[in-house]
Amino acid sequence: MSAKILILNGPNLNMLGKREPGVYGSKTLDDVISACTTLGNEVGLAVESYQSNHEGDLVTRIQEAGQAGTPIVFNPGAYSHTSIALRDAITSANAHVIEVHISNIHAREEFRHVSYISAVANGVIAGCGTDGYLMAIRVIANQLQLAEQTKQA
Amino acid sequence: MSAKILILNGPNLNMLGKREPGVYGSKTLDDVISACTTLGNEVGLAVESYQSNHEGDLVTRIQEAGQAGTPIVFNPGAYSHTSIALRDAITSANAHVIEVHISNIHAREEFRHVSYISAVANGVIAGCGTDGYLMAIRVIANQLQLAEQTKQA
Amino acid sequence: MSAKILILNGPNLNMLGKREPGVYGSKTLDDVISACTTLGNEVGLAVESYQSNHEGDLVTRIQEAGQAGTPIVFNPGAYSHTSIALRDAITSANAHVIEVHISNIHAREEFRHVSYISAVANGVIAGCGTDGYLMAIRVIANQLQLAEQTKQA
Amino acid sequence: MSAKILILNGPNLNMLGKREPGVYGSKTLDDVISACTTLGNEVGLAVESYQSNHEGDLVTRIQEAGQAGTPIVFNPGAYSHTSIALRDAITSANAHVIEVHISNIHAREEFRHVSYISAVANGVIAGCGTDGYLMAIRVIANQLQLAEQTKQA
Amino acid sequence: MSAKILILNGPNLNMLGKREPGVYGSKTLDDVISACTTLGNEVGLAVESYQSNHEGDLVTRIQEAGQAGTPIVFNPGAYSHTSIALRDAITSANAHVIEVHISNIHAREEFRHVSYISAVANGVIAGCGTDGYLMAIRVIANQLQLAEQTKQA
Amino acid sequence: MSAKILILNGPNLNMLGKREPGVYGSKTLDDVISACTTLGNEVGLAVESYQSNHEGDLVTRIQEAGQAGTPIVFNPGAYSHTSIALRDAITSANAHVIEVHISNIHAREEFRHVSYISAVANGVIAGCGTDGYLMAIRVIANQLQLAEQTKQA
Amino acid sequence: MSAKILILNGPNLNMLGKREPGVYGSKTLDDVISACTTLGNEVGLAVESYQSNHEGDLVTRIQEAGQAGTPIVFNPGAYSHTSIALRDAITSANAHVIEVHISNIHAREEFRHVSYISAVANGVIAGCGTDGYLMAIRVIANQLQLAEQTKQA
Amino acid sequence: MSAKILILNGPNLNMLGKREPGVYGSKTLDDVISACTTLGNEVGLAVESYQSNHEGDLVTRIQEAGQAGTPIVFNPGAYSHTSIALRDAITSANAHVIEVHISNIHAREEFRHVSYISAVANGVIAGCGTDGYLMAIRVIANQLQLAEQTKQA
Amino acid sequence: MSAKILILNGPNLNMLGKREPGVYGSKTLDDVISACTTLGNEVGLAVESYQSNHEGDLVTRIQEAGQAGTPIVFNPGAYSHTSIALRDAITSANAHVIEVHISNIHAREEFRHVSYISAVANGVIAGCGTDGYLMAIRVIANQLQLAEQTKQA
Amino acid sequence: MSAKILILNGPNLNMLGKREPGVYGSKTLDDVISACTTLGNEVGLAVESYQSNHEGDLVTRIQEAGQAGTPIVFNPGAYSHTSIALRDAITSANAHVIEVHISNIHAREEFRHVSYISAVANGVIAGCGTDGYLMAIRVIANQLQLAEQTKQA
Amino acid sequence: MSAKILILNGPNLNMLGKREPGVYGSKTLDDVISACTTLGNEVGLAVESYQSNHEGDLVTRIQEAGQAGTPIVFNPGAYSHTSIALRDAITSANAHVIEVHISNIHAREEFRHVSYISAVANGVIAGCGTDGYLMAIRVIANQLQLAEQTKQA
Amino acid sequence: MSAKILILNGPNLNMLGKREPGVYGSKTLDDVISACTTLGNEVGLAVESYQSNHEGDLVTRIQEAGQAGTPIVFNPGAYSHTSIALRDAITSANAHVIEVHISNIHAREEFRHVSYISAVANGVIAGCGTDGYLMAIRVIANQLQLAEQTKQA
Repeated sequence: MSAKILILNGPNLNMLGKREPGVYGSKTLDDVISACTTLGNEVGLAVESYQSNHEGDLVTRIQEAGQAGTPIVFNPGAYSHTSIALRDAITSANAHVIEVHISNIHAREEFRHVSYISAVANGVIAGCGTDGYLMAIRVIANQLQLAEQTKQA
Repeated sequence: MSAKILILNGPNLNMLGKREPGVYGSKTLDDVISACTTLGNEVGLAVESYQSNHEGDLVTRIQEAGQAGTPIVFNPGAYSHTSIALRDAITSANAHVIEVHISNIHAREEFRHVSYISAVANGVIAGCGTDGYLMAIRVIANQLQLAEQTKQA
Repeated sequence: MSAKILILNGPNLNMLGKREPGVYGSKTLDDVISACTTLGNEVGLAVESYQSNHEGDLVTRIQEAGQAGTPIVFNPGAYSHTSIALRDAITSANAHVIEVHISNIHAREEFRHVSYISAVANGVIAGCGTDGYLMAIRVIANQLQLAEQTKQA
Repeated sequence: MSAKILILNGPNLNMLGKREPGVYGSKTLDDVISACTTLGNEVGLAVESYQSNHEGDLVTRIQEAGQAGTPIVFNPGAYSHTSIALRDAITSANAHVIEVHISNIHAREEFRHVSYISAVANGVIAGCGTDGYLMAIRVIANQLQLAEQTKQA
Repeated sequence: MSAKILILNGPNLNMLGKREPGVYGSKTLDDVISACTTLGNEVGLAVESYQSNHEGDLVTRIQEAGQAGTPIVFNPGAYSHTSIALRDAITSANAHVIEVHISNIHAREEFRHVSYISAVANGVIAGCGTDGYLMAIRVIANQLQLAEQTKQA
Repeated sequence: MSAKILILNGPNLNMLGKREPGVYGSKTLDDVISACTTLGNEVGLAVESYQSNHEGDLVTRIQEAGQAGTPIVFNPGAYSHTSIALRDAITSANAHVIEVHISNIHAREEFRHVSYISAVANGVIAGCGTDGYLMAIRVIANQLQLAEQTKQA
Repeated sequence: MSAKILILNGPNLNMLGKREPGVYGSKTLDDVISACTTLGNEVGLAVESYQSNHEGDLVTRIQEAGQAGTPIVFNPGAYSHTSIALRDAITSANAHVIEVHISNIHAREEFRHVSYISAVANGVIAGCGTDGYLMAIRVIANQLQLAEQTKQA
Repeated sequence: MSAKILILNGPNLNMLGKREPGVYGSKTLDDVISACTTLGNEVGLAVESYQSNHEGDLVTRIQEAGQAGTPIVFNPGAYSHTSIALRDAITSANAHVIEVHISNIHAREEFRHVSYISAVANGVIAGCGTDGYLMAIRVIANQLQLAEQTKQA
Repeated sequence: MSAKILILNGPNLNMLGKREPGVYGSKTLDDVISACTTLGNEVGLAVESYQSNHEGDLVTRIQEAGQAGTPIVFNPGAYSHTSIALRDAITSANAHVIEVHISNIHAREEFRHVSYISAVANGVIAGCGTDGYLMAIRVIANQLQLAEQTKQA
Repeated sequence: MSAKILILNGPNLNMLGKREPGVYGSKTLDDVISACTTLGNEVGLAVESYQSNHEGDLVTRIQEAGQAGTPIVFNPGAYSHTSIALRDAITSANAHVIEVHISNIHAREEFRHVSYISAVANGVIAGCGTDGYLMAIRVIANQLQLAEQTKQA
Repeated sequence: MSAKILILNGPNLNMLGKREPGVYGSKTLDDVISACTTLGNEVGLAVESYQSNHEGDLVTRIQEAGQAGTPIVFNPGAYSHTSIALRDAITSANAHVIEVHISNIHAREEFRHVSYISAVANGVIAGCGTDGYLMAIRVIANQLQLAEQTKQA
Repeated sequence: MSAKILILNGPNLNMLGKREPGVYGSKTLDDVISACTTLGNEVGLAVESYQSNHEGDLVTRIQEAGQAGTPIVFNPGAYSHTSIALRDAITSANAHVIEVHISNIHAREEFRHVSYISAVANGVIAGCGTDGYLMAIRVIANQLQLAEQTKQA
């Protein structure tokens, strides 16, 4: 069983909490990662986190996580709607990904309604606020446990 | 604080477990509701459930839940993609809804990529299997707690 | 001359007055039907009314009215934009229909701009509030009178 | 209370009655205005009328009516589907407009299904023949009365 | 070998024969079912029939037939073009379906050119009038025989 | 009564049976024509057959059959989706045509979902395998008989 | 027989000859009208001409010509692609119109490929330079003669 | 100066006169060619004619005419809307082409509104009946004369 | 060097300042022209101005300015999105045009995102408020100077 | 190992070298085939070649090559963009095809950007001039060698 | 009052002057920045500049400028048409942005006609050459002055 | 003659061989570069190679190669379909580019069917596996030789 999990955040998520609090709430990215770490400890997953405004950095990070067998909680931000490279990174590295969007992208501009990532993700959570990160960690924990049990049987 | 929660399922979800297990898993709808009830007990929410193949029945049930202030975990099934009436029911009854899809609708036929419900839901979960229902219950529990705290403050 | 008229209302119109008063006003459906009955009496038309959240029920009711020669004041609600079955019911039963929308559907979401019903209706009224129902009754009264005169001539 | 009302007609409506009687009936524009004037007297509204084949003239007339607080019964004819300038005239002069179409534009060519005017009108009537003008006058009369009552209260 | 067959008819088909005879002929639905029963007897299939204007009823009936292994001659009427729920019912119950349209849907309005059902049907017949039902019964009889022979071999 | 019938096959149907048996079965075009001839004898129709990979040849053959009053069972193959010339041939020669597709074109690539031929055919059969040819012969036999009876009456 | 013909020119055609000679040639509008008059004399048609940059003026002129039974050689210029009012003028006045474009509109920007006028014109000539006007006069002369002969027969 | 001209006709034009006289008139293709020959004689052009239902034959014929410097009056029939090969033939052989359509293709089905040929033709004539062929011959005669004069100058 | 400049304003811009001040600010068109005149004096350009609600008047005015070599600061208002005639006027008269929009048309309704004028303008300024007019005058002044210098060189 | 290879050319490629040398170079088709033969000899492949302007001929030739196991270097010319029949020929005969375009189709008109052939080809080469044919021969030689080696292993 | 201003340039703008001088002129980016600095000095703004080919770098730089209250003259180059991340950076950092395009993007390929940035910019300037940068600085200077005055009032 | 050539690879191509071998084969990027170097030596081209997941890095590298006159074999990976910046880099640096795709992008998801790069590339090779790189090197070698010969002549 992989004991690590990567919380990966895309462009502008470093502005979380400092940005449109009406839409995204007042928690900063540090607050969110901190809550993720706490929950990770509870469910036996060591939380790593990485944020970048660069599509290329995110591609690289997904490749590394995929190769190491580290599941990813991934909020691709605006790149969700424009990046086929990130989609290919997930596929090519066979990465385990839960996609998270803090806001309800379906209730925003039409160009945010489609995500290139969703079709290759293992699950998608949107519009549940920063709670979405915690939900994603739980899902991954369950899925890992399930996989473990299957292997043992 | 509303102590009830409605697990509402749309068309063909009564076939769950009997149907394409490769896609939907082998749990029946009864299994899912049962797991929901157990989790509901843990987080202090009495679980009710209703399934119908009729769009009109679902509209009515959403109206009732909305008026009673009962939050809804709603899997609209195929009606997600064709029913404006269900969307209007949520809006008109001011219902609190977490939309759940068992499969990853974004990885299926194009006509399943858009849901009329998502834009008016309080959150959307897709592709996490039947775990999605449990995740939705937790989100609602958190949201109710938060609302409660806000009121007390 | 047909002495009856049917006020037929589609999904969520039972919520009228309880719902988004900023958009739909504060009159309930009962208030509206009551005003229709009063006007019906003035112009010599016995008002019947029916509301359903079920597309199938509305189809059946249109068939009956069409066969009985009873003109219909029809607010199809959200089904306007998704139901070809209702359109076919009007055509197949040769029903006389004035379509009414309380709000200005042309000023709302794009998916509300087109109605399958309009092309087969004898008239369309939108955005005049609940006054639209009364206007529709008057139009029908005029049209019946005209038809009567034509027959007598 | 504004005691005037403008019946404004767009291109080709001067041909009314002389033109495709199967589609538009045999009443001329003069007949229609005459019936409007009679009804206007009944409901306390002095009817003015204006017809032009020029988009620019219609823009100017809407600006004047809007600034004078005179409500408009407006049949934009073919300009409905092509004129953003008329839409802007209504918005910029804050004009009170009921849009009227004699024929059922929804049952004609596809390019007649969308009207730039509808989204900024206070109401839309289509397919009720020249009765539509009279219905529009009544709606405006009601709306003015309502506004008056609101002011007095 | 399944000795039963279901003739399933969607919305407005109860109006058959009473409705636009130029388009649909003068036979009523009873006439059609009666002819189906006669042919069914010849080819060894007990004919059951069901008609509903309710999408939900049709979903349920398909589920039952699919689970019982009863093949379906299905005329979905207007729901062909709008119902993903019926499509899912066929898939989820693994139903054997021949889709029948009395009129030539390809020669009518554009919104009738695409059917959600066709892609999951075992065969599609359109524009052959009420003969289509009889053709469908023969196809199913052949397919059952073929399957039987395959099993015996 | 016309005693002849033409089985007309378009491009690549000469490969039938030699080609993707999983999709099209293992019968060759000769097998199919042979079965058609047998059924033709039963129902009193002399079967002629013609296959060509040339759009122009098919156009010419339809013109000849249409002028001779010979009904056509027509599988246009890939030309269904690209040939307006074949459509015009049917119209201009007033040919009686039942269109047949062996596979379910609605379940294949999107560019196979629309056929220029269907709108001018007297009937369309798809996805019933090579049985479709036999069904088409029966339909034509019925239609001819019906026409004969009508003439005699 | 109508002895008059109207050469009607839309926006910017007053610039003919002064404008992009590579595209439109070096003849001015006066040159063209003059050649038309000469040909008109030959074929027995008195040529009138009118040019306007105003859509409304063109509408009015078409109405007058239509009512007087005067055939029109009409180059609508840019209004071809944007004016439904001109189309309606032709229809409502039952005008006889040959549409002429000097340049080949099909070889220019995509928004010039469709003309609202063409569908209601009695003929369309494009890309033949200013010769198009003369061709149109001949066609009308032929058509009038034909109509005359038909009347006499 | 080229003394020859080719009247080239595409698929189904061999049916002219035998086909839908309401749309295409009662003249046969022979009648048309005969009239063309007569006019050709008048203007000094020897008329050749060719008709084929084969796209490939038409391609070849255009190549030959283009290489020989023979101008073409071309009615591509249904291939107008589907053949890029014909368009390329005109371009690659640098052929001089006037495109003719007997009916007004702009007033028919939408798929007939666009012609691949028009953008590379030297002129386009539509909806003028079989007169269109004669008009095209005159245009070409003028254009040749003009070119001749230019060369001499 | 051309010493004149035309400030040309399209439909509804006569309402400037009286209209939606939140969107367009509180300056009237006279205020704007006055500021333009002042700046014009500074940079050596005599400012003329013209406003019309008529597309045809604007076409004519552009033709005159183009022929006189007078550069134009042009706010086409709503005609930006619907007028090909204005575009052609600019091209045909070879006018020098800077297009100005007071509001940010890209942040408004989708039908305002595209301007037929932009592709033929020498520059486009949007969303800078009434400052846009002044910016346009400066650009033109620079461009004239540059052209002058080039000529002198 | 198959010792033959077919160089198959579609419509208008017989004009190569005589046509638009700026776009296609000055080599004729004979020059190209000659170079192919030379290279074929080097790599052990006997080159056959065939050109046709007829879609049907190309279909037949692909069927023959496919059945004989002869790989094809195929330049479908304009049929690339319009022929599903050619695509089906490749699939149904299981032909080995390298698609070649001399010019860069992606840099030309939009209707040349999509090829029905590409999705079923074993490789696609565009814009490399007539070199593309030679490249294709080499690829096929490599692929055959590879297949041979695999079989031997 | 913020005394700084950032001139931010996107991908390939480092090639300015070395690149297609016909389209972009012969000034290098250094020339432009130098002119900006000079004008900045005049209007009291210290000019900083930054160019990057990396979307991520530009996102970061916008965030920094936004947080520091430094207004931005932003030429996003090709990222205008593909980057939602840049748009979100502007929104999330509440940055004051004037968007500048050197060439007239509306007169180029269609994919350059829409900019994701425009809807969130405080102004847009296109097609005015490198003058656009100077115009943008002046606008910002005015806007800052205005804001200052408002604060003081 | 330029003696260098750059093999430039975009995002995820560093995963080659480790990734979906069914689709991309089992050779790593190092294997491919190595084969390229060998072939480069044969044809007299010194091979350099660069891979990056960053769009910006690729832009920069293209600029450098373009300025140095080094031709590029470019596999843009997923950026093919989303990057206008890479396209502009090629244009602005006047780079000589052969675009290579290992898989047949035309047989994959629709969003991979269009490449922004192709229209500005000197050649495109797709679906020939890693052979495509070698083919591209040969093409460039030929093109350089040709250019050299032209210069000498």
